[in-house]
Amino acid sequence: MIETILRHRSIRKYKSDSIDDGLLYRILEAGTRASTTGNMQVYSMVVTREESLRKQLWETHFKQDMVLQAPVHITFCADFNRFNKWCRLRKADPGFDNYLSFFTAAIDALLVSQNVALAAEANGLGICYLGTATYMADRIIEILDLPECVVPVAALVIGYPDEDPDLTDRLPLGGVVHHEKYSDYSEKDIDRIYAEKEALPETAALLEENRKETLAQVFTDNRYTRRDNIHFSKQYLDVIRRQGFLKNN
Amino acid sequence: MIETILRHRSIRKYKSDSIDDGLLYRILEAGTRASTTGNMQVYSMVVTREESLRKQLWETHFKQDMVLQAPVHITFCADFNRFNKWCRLRKADPGFDNYLSFFTAAIDALLVSQNVALAAEANGLGICYLGTATYMADRIIEILDLPECVVPVAALVIGYPDEDPDLTDRLPLGGVVHHEKYSDYSEKDIDRIYAEKEALPETAALLEENRKETLAQVFTDNRYTRRDNIHFSKQYLDVIRRQGFLKNN
Repeated sequence: MIETILRHRSIRKYKSDSIDDGLLYRILEAGTRASTTGNMQVYSMVVTREESLRKQLWETHFKQDMVLQAPVHITFCADFNRFNKWCRLRKADPGFDNYLSFFTAAIDALLVSQNVALAAEANGLGICYLGTATYMADRIIEILDLPECVVPVAALVIGYPDEDPDLTDRLPLGGVVHHEKYSDYSEKDIDRIYAEKEALPETAALLEENRKETLAQVFTDNRYTRRDNIHFSKQYLDVIRRQGFLKNN
Repeated sequence: MIETILRHRSIRKYKSDSIDDGLLYRILEAGTRASTTGNMQVYSMVVTREESLRKQLWETHFKQDMVLQAPVHITFCADFNRFNKWCRLRKADPGFDNYLSFFTAAIDALLVSQNVALAAEANGLGICYLGTATYMADRIIEILDLPECVVPVAALVIGYPDEDPDLTDRLPLGGVVHHEKYSDYSEKDIDRIYAEKEALPETAALLEENRKETLAQVFTDNRYTRRDNIHFSKQYLDVIRRQGFLKNN
């Protein structure tokens, strides 16, 4: 088990081989065993395999090749729609049209997604998370017909790997773990924590390719700019509001 | 691997046995192998073992006994503090003081938490998520000294189980999975999806104990009331704002 976790790499090239239905259902079933708040299971998994729909999703997810290649695309959604309907049919008055309920449902959906990712990897499949699921939530809602109280929070592609990449680097464990309380970082701490990452050959290549002086600038100026972050923040908050989760906030 | 996932039960009674440091570090290391947006690792794990601090956390987490019993308490935080400091020390201007950045960091932290939960379970330990981590975020920030740009999103207790509960029920897989697109639920669908849960002996016991006509009413009137949800929504959004993640929204 720990072996599967330790071996994780995101896979960005896939064979066209489809995934057996029985295997896919076992993987989805594994998803449903994740902890969920009050056992409410306020999430949904939308499993998209049809090529024309995957093509629409590919356009939405910034046209990353792997989205077209991988045979299975799963969108994990915070979902109070089903639970609300159940309440209304059972003479109960649901009070879940607020931010806490959205976040609770998002937690449910994200824990499920990680179970699905690991169950897939344990069966020889490769996966890649698509960060674009939150950036492009409004468009995903249209493509997948998501009703009120349903918001996409993550997406995965799954398929048989057509590459065998190395593990990616991680910060030293001490850089992300705090003992007892949070101990804030000094300048020396930051230097030590990022030293290995900054010394990687990949970093030198990135600096040259992006014509930047520091790796941090590649993140702030090229990959995750303030302007994009503000734009997508507004869009995602609009989506959360439009789907009915900010009525009392 | 799938076996560990399928066997998950939340453990609410713990032995007082401590967890070996080496084992704990391997479990935390497994956490860091989770996918993270752009490999930024914008999360922190605060590992609390000291009894006096765990007592403060126990009070915060609605005085659930297991929080006092379990030897290890981990608070998973969305954390842009470390990344922002790195950027500023490397002549880069971080633009992460917005909602998208909070949510991105929350996703990172939650995927890490599920890896940690499964790695612990694979090693014979029991875990329980504490939903109260979001409700009581303001108090947790005080207890653990969390600085700006750090927000708790989940908490786990970990320890050796002192009970062996059955698996809890789940809705049928077809109730939470949609094929191709989302297919909204009819009244009949809802009846079918919730039939098994409503027929459980535990449900009959809950109805009697809570003097309610339907299980849904136990959720809406007793467990997750509109009034509490609105209260905790305001508090959590205040925390997200106060920690510096809603500056442009």
